[in-house]
Amino acid sequence: MSYVLYYSPGAASMPVHWMLLEMGVPFDARLVDIDAGQQRDPEYLRLNPAGRVPTLVVDGVARHESAALLMLLAERHPEAGLAPAPGSAARAGWLEWMVYLANTLLPAMRDWFYAASDGDPAGAEAVRTLARRRIEEACARLDAHCAAGHDYLAGDRLSTADLLALVLLRWTRNMPRPATDWPHLTGYIQRLRALPSFIEVSAREQLTEWRNDA
Amino acid sequence: MSYVLYYSPGAASMPVHWMLLEMGVPFDARLVDIDAGQQRDPEYLRLNPAGRVPTLVVDGVARHESAALLMLLAERHPEAGLAPAPGSAARAGWLEWMVYLANTLLPAMRDWFYAASDGDPAGAEAVRTLARRRIEEACARLDAHCAAGHDYLAGDRLSTADLLALVLLRWTRNMPRPATDWPHLTGYIQRLRALPSFIEVSAREQLTEWRNDA
Repeated sequence: MSYVLYYSPGAASMPVHWMLLEMGVPFDARLVDIDAGQQRDPEYLRLNPAGRVPTLVVDGVARHESAALLMLLAERHPEAGLAPAPGSAARAGWLEWMVYLANTLLPAMRDWFYAASDGDPAGAEAVRTLARRRIEEACARLDAHCAAGHDYLAGDRLSTADLLALVLLRWTRNMPRPATDWPHLTGYIQRLRALPSFIEVSAREQLTEWRNDA
Repeated sequence: MSYVLYYSPGAASMPVHWMLLEMGVPFDARLVDIDAGQQRDPEYLRLNPAGRVPTLVVDGVARHESAALLMLLAERHPEAGLAPAPGSAARAGWLEWMVYLANTLLPAMRDWFYAASDGDPAGAEAVRTLARRRIEEACARLDAHCAAGHDYLAGDRLSTADLLALVLLRWTRNMPRPATDWPHLTGYIQRLRALPSFIEVSAREQLTEWRNDA
């Protein structure tokens, strides 16, 4: 199995980067400099026609969509235990969290950051207002899950849903109400940020913000 | 295995309803009358705190999120062949389409229909303008996939990605540019609408629009 990850620091590639480190499988990492517009280089567009990160080249074939890559890696590396096994009690909940994060929190975050470039700048404020409401609703839902005594989203151990959630929650750090403002969610965030693999991915992506020691 | 599906005609429950019929597995179907507000009945909110459809009660436990339910059913019923098997060549592409539909087309459709109730009605027009752009981009992407000679989204046979796609495309039928306006996509739509299971689910949900004979 060979993996080449195209990533940008702190972007949607981060949960995939983190997962590869957490699993300890070999991979090559290639920086896509978004500020320099490298995501629109013809060579990169051949790998990812939408010009986004991540791209994960899996055994020579370029694949996309963070949540899909996390699920794919989980089933290619079942020994890593980053998804409940098919047929297990926690499986349905894991699928539900993966889809919820992908279809609710992730698109709302895209709206928050890209409303003016994805759409008409004149309408961006309205789009961002709705996005903020949805992001805060998602934080409240995650907070309630943690308040009910759950240390992780799916089952009683770390899964890809936590990796995806944490990176999305990281994106709220400069919002009017960041995820760390919710009392139970902040404990979850601090617990995941203490993982050696999170510290390692933050170091490799040269991220200085949103660490437990920063 | 026991299944109880709570559905509303033509809603996000439809791909799940369709899949259960396509697989030929026994299930009970219970109508949630959205127009009568039954999705806010306390009894239903216990099954689905967000007050949405679908809910699929799987062996006594209420589960949500259409895309997650389709993936769950695919792995509980591998003999139905509605998802490429784990490890097969088409698997990664199937996961990518499922996530793409869930995180791009589905939230844009929600914006199109619910901008005024999910958010501030004063901002709804701006939200819907961006939603329309994204929906048309998704139609163009699906059209390009069909134009490249693919009869289905993942691999060379019907999968849950097609069921989800078709129901989302159905929702465009009264939009300024419906999905049937794209030349290759309309062939895909007509092919899927000819399936006996689609005709059956349309009949059971008493849907008279958007059939090949209507």
